[in-house]
Amino acid sequence: MKINGTPTRTIWPAKDGWAVEIIDQTRLPHELVNVRLESLADAAHAIKAMLVRGAPLIGATAAYGMALAARANSSDLALTVAYNILHATRPTAINLKWALDQMITALGKVPEDQRMAAAYARAAEICDEDVAINSAIGDNGATLIQAAWESARRARGADRVNVLTHCNAGWLATVDWGTAIAPIYKAHDAGIPVHVWVDETRPRNQGASLTARELNWHGVPHTVIADNTGGHLMQHGMVDLCIVGTDRVTSNGDVCNKIGTYLKALAAKDNAVPFYVALPSPTIDWSVADGIKEIPIEERDAAEQTHMTGKAADGSIVSVQVTPDGSPAGNWGFDVTPARLVSGLITERGICAASPEGLRGLFPERNG
Amino acid sequence: MKINGTPTRTIWPAKDGWAVEIIDQTRLPHELVNVRLESLADAAHAIKAMLVRGAPLIGATAAYGMALAARANSSDLALTVAYNILHATRPTAINLKWALDQMITALGKVPEDQRMAAAYARAAEICDEDVAINSAIGDNGATLIQAAWESARRARGADRVNVLTHCNAGWLATVDWGTAIAPIYKAHDAGIPVHVWVDETRPRNQGASLTARELNWHGVPHTVIADNTGGHLMQHGMVDLCIVGTDRVTSNGDVCNKIGTYLKALAAKDNAVPFYVALPSPTIDWSVADGIKEIPIEERDAAEQTHMTGKAADGSIVSVQVTPDGSPAGNWGFDVTPARLVSGLITERGICAASPEGLRGLFPERNG
Repeated sequence: MKINGTPTRTIWPAKDGWAVEIIDQTRLPHELVNVRLESLADAAHAIKAMLVRGAPLIGATAAYGMALAARANSSDLALTVAYNILHATRPTAINLKWALDQMITALGKVPEDQRMAAAYARAAEICDEDVAINSAIGDNGATLIQAAWESARRARGADRVNVLTHCNAGWLATVDWGTAIAPIYKAHDAGIPVHVWVDETRPRNQGASLTARELNWHGVPHTVIADNTGGHLMQHGMVDLCIVGTDRVTSNGDVCNKIGTYLKALAAKDNAVPFYVALPSPTIDWSVADGIKEIPIEERDAAEQTHMTGKAADGSIVSVQVTPDGSPAGNWGFDVTPARLVSGLITERGICAASPEGLRGLFPERNG
Repeated sequence: MKINGTPTRTIWPAKDGWAVEIIDQTRLPHELVNVRLESLADAAHAIKAMLVRGAPLIGATAAYGMALAARANSSDLALTVAYNILHATRPTAINLKWALDQMITALGKVPEDQRMAAAYARAAEICDEDVAINSAIGDNGATLIQAAWESARRARGADRVNVLTHCNAGWLATVDWGTAIAPIYKAHDAGIPVHVWVDETRPRNQGASLTARELNWHGVPHTVIADNTGGHLMQHGMVDLCIVGTDRVTSNGDVCNKIGTYLKALAAKDNAVPFYVALPSPTIDWSVADGIKEIPIEERDAAEQTHMTGKAADGSIVSVQVTPDGSPAGNWGFDVTPARLVSGLITERGICAASPEGLRGLFPERNG
């Protein structure tokens, strides 16, 4: 999407044609800093330290990580090691494994001396495929916002349609467009007066720092709220639609997403607010059925909970401790929203029910 | 309760016998600073700027505010003005009006020249009554923790009982003991191995800064978590019991409490975790039935959402901006949890169902 009018992606080949550049998302929202990745180690660090985050962008970065690895050494052994190193960077995102498997398949088809070129080519394709997928998700999801806008206008003479989102599933979480935010960009660009309630998304504040940042850059009206606020807004008719992203959807429609998503889905159900999840089909993990029982939930450094980083009065970026000395903290990164709370899944192929039947209807190649 | 071994209250008469001292809770958890209140204006500021917070402590401070006003001028007109000034400081807490009405009643009974002494006496009584009420709430609620501990031990051989709480309804929110935390102190002091999940409680972080601070001071095991986390913990059997406080309970058992309480109650219901609300009976607003429709919800300064204050690496207290420049924020202070989601109300008289019948059973003087 656009940064101050300039079309931008989150990952792109450097001018020299071999290195890869990304936006260091840990510096957002206050600083826009690009980082150059020159090696497998650089790519693995960028994923692990969350310079890049969001399932699709993690996959794209892993793909380029394999290309950087192939540039250094294209042997089966070196690529196997690279696969394992990249696969170990983040435990939850299924796109990571999907992208790595795509790369291994592509590289397995060509002789060793052609693997580097094949790797860069396939990584670029994976990025372009992500952009096309997200644009289609946006077109499909925009129909829901259009419908919500029309009914809000009819029902209460609304002058805007209110969409609540959690965490950052915008273009910064993908190569471009985003997943949950793609429908919002499409609706906004089509002239629908959409306003976004942006969950702060503690403990890493991806909503307050990233979703607000990109909506702000693109000119979409929005309001940052505490994660605690959505239920109150829904009780009072101030949310017409919820759209969130996901890191993994199971074959029965359970949704693993940023911690707190489950609480918003409960509130949406309790107040008859539609709750949709936007995802590219690689996010579906057909090997897992019961998300609560089967998906391992990443526990991260407690310092992400005890400390908060932001811009001080003098403009410097400062990390401050919000808890008293000696009080321990827990930091679970994700939760699982049961399919029964999900109104539907927005994919590049269309919208389906969050159920085995719904998913297999949209992905018939998975039948039998 | 104790601060480094020293029994302490949140409000007390100064040595000179006429001024009043409080802990400036905006300086917690990193600094312990007492503030001296010498006038009606000081007391009103202390409430409005949340140097004191928590419904019972707001009431106690308002009572002493009336005493400080009476010391300056005991005329009917001056006391009426004082009442109105103090009543306007915070819109939601019913205890504020309750305490002010108590003072007016006491002062109305005596001639003008005796009003100052009567005011200080009644304010001191209101404080002592609060301590006695909260101690009784603690004794009543501790039976629930005892029962949860025994069933956790039987059901899964647990080595601790996990209680989740939201915001700060501890002794810092009252004169002493607290409401929601009083049962935890009683259980802990009785040797029950209670561990507390402390919701951070954005946007003002009363959990991370105040509840963690007082549990830490008193030696109760606890873990600070993001407000987003409770649902995940409940899905995985890591919460045995929820106990929260409240700013106002309606005659049908609806509970107005810090924003986000409703989301935890939904998760508790969805996972069959008992969800209790602890309150002193003055918190019950018998004049209101439907909390969602009838209780006005305070909207506070957006800066509380966009900025976060904490301790920097050099030990200084710094406020940092977490949102990008130009992104607006909303800041609703409270939400209403419908009675249907509340397992029971813990009061100084005992525990009752969150229903008109339950409340009137415990407070028969309200019948007919």
